[in-house]
Amino acid sequence: MTVDTPARPTLIALLHGPDQPGLVARTANWIYDRGGNILHADQHRDDEAGIFFQRIEWEPADAAQADADGFSAFVRGLGMEVSVAQSDRLPRVVLFVSKIEHCFVDLLARWKMGELPCELAGVVSNHPDLASITEFYGLPFHHVPVGREAKAEAERKQVALLRKYQADLVVMARYMQILSESFLLGCGCPVINIHHSFLPAFAGARPYHQAHSRGVKLIGATAHYATAILDDGPIIQQDVSPVNHRHSVRDLVRKGRDLEKSVLAQAVRWHLEHRVLVYGNKTVVFD
Amino acid sequence: MTVDTPARPTLIALLHGPDQPGLVARTANWIYDRGGNILHADQHRDDEAGIFFQRIEWEPADAAQADADGFSAFVRGLGMEVSVAQSDRLPRVVLFVSKIEHCFVDLLARWKMGELPCELAGVVSNHPDLASITEFYGLPFHHVPVGREAKAEAERKQVALLRKYQADLVVMARYMQILSESFLLGCGCPVINIHHSFLPAFAGARPYHQAHSRGVKLIGATAHYATAILDDGPIIQQDVSPVNHRHSVRDLVRKGRDLEKSVLAQAVRWHLEHRVLVYGNKTVVFD
Amino acid sequence: MTVDTPARPTLIALLHGPDQPGLVARTANWIYDRGGNILHADQHRDDEAGIFFQRIEWEPADAAQADADGFSAFVRGLGMEVSVAQSDRLPRVVLFVSKIEHCFVDLLARWKMGELPCELAGVVSNHPDLASITEFYGLPFHHVPVGREAKAEAERKQVALLRKYQADLVVMARYMQILSESFLLGCGCPVINIHHSFLPAFAGARPYHQAHSRGVKLIGATAHYATAILDDGPIIQQDVSPVNHRHSVRDLVRKGRDLEKSVLAQAVRWHLEHRVLVYGNKTVVFD
Amino acid sequence: MTVDTPARPTLIALLHGPDQPGLVARTANWIYDRGGNILHADQHRDDEAGIFFQRIEWEPADAAQADADGFSAFVRGLGMEVSVAQSDRLPRVVLFVSKIEHCFVDLLARWKMGELPCELAGVVSNHPDLASITEFYGLPFHHVPVGREAKAEAERKQVALLRKYQADLVVMARYMQILSESFLLGCGCPVINIHHSFLPAFAGARPYHQAHSRGVKLIGATAHYATAILDDGPIIQQDVSPVNHRHSVRDLVRKGRDLEKSVLAQAVRWHLEHRVLVYGNKTVVFD
Repeated sequence: MTVDTPARPTLIALLHGPDQPGLVARTANWIYDRGGNILHADQHRDDEAGIFFQRIEWEPADAAQADADGFSAFVRGLGMEVSVAQSDRLPRVVLFVSKIEHCFVDLLARWKMGELPCELAGVVSNHPDLASITEFYGLPFHHVPVGREAKAEAERKQVALLRKYQADLVVMARYMQILSESFLLGCGCPVINIHHSFLPAFAGARPYHQAHSRGVKLIGATAHYATAILDDGPIIQQDVSPVNHRHSVRDLVRKGRDLEKSVLAQAVRWHLEHRVLVYGNKTVVFD
Repeated sequence: MTVDTPARPTLIALLHGPDQPGLVARTANWIYDRGGNILHADQHRDDEAGIFFQRIEWEPADAAQADADGFSAFVRGLGMEVSVAQSDRLPRVVLFVSKIEHCFVDLLARWKMGELPCELAGVVSNHPDLASITEFYGLPFHHVPVGREAKAEAERKQVALLRKYQADLVVMARYMQILSESFLLGCGCPVINIHHSFLPAFAGARPYHQAHSRGVKLIGATAHYATAILDDGPIIQQDVSPVNHRHSVRDLVRKGRDLEKSVLAQAVRWHLEHRVLVYGNKTVVFD
Repeated sequence: MTVDTPARPTLIALLHGPDQPGLVARTANWIYDRGGNILHADQHRDDEAGIFFQRIEWEPADAAQADADGFSAFVRGLGMEVSVAQSDRLPRVVLFVSKIEHCFVDLLARWKMGELPCELAGVVSNHPDLASITEFYGLPFHHVPVGREAKAEAERKQVALLRKYQADLVVMARYMQILSESFLLGCGCPVINIHHSFLPAFAGARPYHQAHSRGVKLIGATAHYATAILDDGPIIQQDVSPVNHRHSVRDLVRKGRDLEKSVLAQAVRWHLEHRVLVYGNKTVVFD
Repeated sequence: MTVDTPARPTLIALLHGPDQPGLVARTANWIYDRGGNILHADQHRDDEAGIFFQRIEWEPADAAQADADGFSAFVRGLGMEVSVAQSDRLPRVVLFVSKIEHCFVDLLARWKMGELPCELAGVVSNHPDLASITEFYGLPFHHVPVGREAKAEAERKQVALLRKYQADLVVMARYMQILSESFLLGCGCPVINIHHSFLPAFAGARPYHQAHSRGVKLIGATAHYATAILDDGPIIQQDVSPVNHRHSVRDLVRKGRDLEKSVLAQAVRWHLEHRVLVYGNKTVVFD
């Protein structure tokens, strides 16, 4: 271990697979033997499933790419899956939005202040409303209308834009369309969504109305990876706020906006820092 | 308004009904005209339903019972429902328990420290395990076993005990039996239950296993009035705790115990202070 | 009581003074006798100090101004202080900023979404950096540099701007200058400040460094009215976030930004909704 | 890594010292080379101070004592400090109490439910009040009165009891006496205290009165190691609860009890699980 803010680029590996003795020592040795300097190493074991998880970050002695390839081969040889990211290659992100702006504006402001280590490649929307704020932040805006009949056509355009931008991540910042299974399978990168309820309670439409109707004393928001089964993807982050009988549905919506902003931003930042590992329908978040 | 800790007994009215102009002035005037001294007056209006709710506490000039009867008649004359409690008549509470003790021990300790303004009349359990701690606190313990066939018989005994104790409230402190509709209709007093999840998510059995399996990032607990439809009664209080991948089901159960204790105690205290008004499937909590 | 979102303008009175019997009935009667319709009435009594506090909102039968004047005279006749606001006259707010933008951008976005019932009159800054985002939101931006020698001169310019804009409120959105006692006495309106710590712990400069050095497990933020004694004004709102040994000072600053945004916005919203009553060095917040 | 609930006893080492390359690999290798099975390994680096911290837990191949001694010698040879605990040797804890019982009763109940992995050796009190509940839980109770003149004599008796019980930890469960510097230096084990405020705000006596007087919107509690400088020891855990103008000092005290219970219990559990490492005036908590 040395500095927290490395002068040199670092490598960050996320790996998981069947547990076996000596894994902590083996991965550390591989790096140490090549002159690498481990900055962080966190591991977890799912005792029921017998799976070992690790996030390990190190400064390689010289050529980062060689280390990345070599470490990946080594880990796969141990029977595990692995992805290795290089800290000086910023992930490329495309934001999907509609008309509701609070999450979008919040992400733009955080990105400008340096909170989100990524390159914002562009913005895709089914409405033109958020073009001007997008342009204020110097980003390209693509209006892709989504009609009832032309949804497949719209999704083809969206996928083409993701390919053009070489997107590493799509963030649905209150994008009010359901992405089809074929889009999710074909878009080539993970998709993070914010659901405006404490999943699995109040899945589906109008969750604040549902919450108000049930008389709950807390409302919540959930950031998750989008999957073909709506509202059922792996959960990355959740939070809640207290409510009471004095709060109307409109108050719940307002309070919910604050939750949605902070929960989505937190989930996106963890993803961009390579802290989130998905397995089955769950996540391991190395925070 | 005068003192917060009244030297003289106070009356506390909970009332609700169709809204109409002047209700705040009318109830205040009724009390003021009879020499009463209003200590607290909180009101709420459900705009969708057009219902007015009020909790009002006052020191009557002299005979409290006359005021209680007179005020009730006056309020009913305005087309509203009302209940009036007298602060120096402590509600009589019967605790239902099984083997799991954390909520039970917590309530006993709070009661002894004066946090719960009630008379603990007795303890009913389907197991003998908690007899000694009950006796340490000087309370009568009734072991009423609940067999598969003899559930109706057991409930008859339980109702008889509630009658004998003139119970004003039953608290299910992790009582691990489902009370039948006939019990709930016939027991003659409200029943508060603690559900070890954030309802409506994870209703039913083994909620911590469900939560672990879904990979949620928060677990919760819900105190509600028991109704014939399981886990669907009016919610009084809810709270949550953050969890992560490092927490096993056993950890969730342990963290859940802390939630269950504080959520149940809070709900019971509010009920005993005549702060909870039920309408439809919801509560108004004048905290 | 009638509708929550009144079609007609409402009046909102904040009053306090020595407690005496019958105050709840008297204020309600004054309004009811003039055909007014009370929408909300909340009261509080400080038992130690013997002071009665009330926030009361009503729809007057016809001319609002007559009711406002008459009610004020009536309440003063009872020996109490009172202020009455009219819901259709939006308070005029001037924002003071420096270079740090998170609170400022957050307030602008909330205002645009309708969360802050006010007219943003203008922005005053001792640096030019935030001019473009101010203009994007269509607001006038005034650059008033503050040198060491010329502070009094700068404050004179600032007060002149507040007079020109007829400001009802100044919000220091991370404005990094200390306002002098003479400014605070002469500016003619309340000033809300956000202090980036959990006051009274870590008052003064560099609170996140202080917090990191002391090894606390929670950091906080405090919104308060600015007074001549630095960091000692009446507190409106506070919140905290958990931190641990893994968090560097830079992490505390980042986490603190989220706290500062939400705490300041909450305090400003409550003030604009006439929910905050100051007495001595404390606040009563009718939320 | 293998099972979370080891069938065999495990060793848990807490170590820290000047950072140097390869530490993660070296400690892992030492264990792996001797056939040990690492269950958990967490590390942290204080970048400003250049210090490396690690908590590592493993199943040794056979004789645990040999591993404990060997590993300690190895780590000291690397220039670091280390302590190694054996999971099957429960720490021996002595509770210090006065009259206030909420923390004490809470710890007893948690211990009985298996939440606190320790042996409760005995209870020391300057008052006789809590003897009967102590005896209900089957523990020895020692009444050591503390007069003004005889404080040194009382502390000598207390130290003698700690020696007799071979205490590994003292927990001050709202023990209302200040322990002298000579006691703390001579008692031979760490002392955990609960302070009923959010330190460093409201240090010293009557913190809830101070908080009420300052008009704060959150109250807190702090568990810390007791040191010669009152209220200035390393903080282990803190938490807060929202309060408002409606809460009297008595309400703050009641709400504070809940905080004190949960914060103290959490700190004690972490200590007993060998998760807390003290350096300077701060703690690293490997939770």
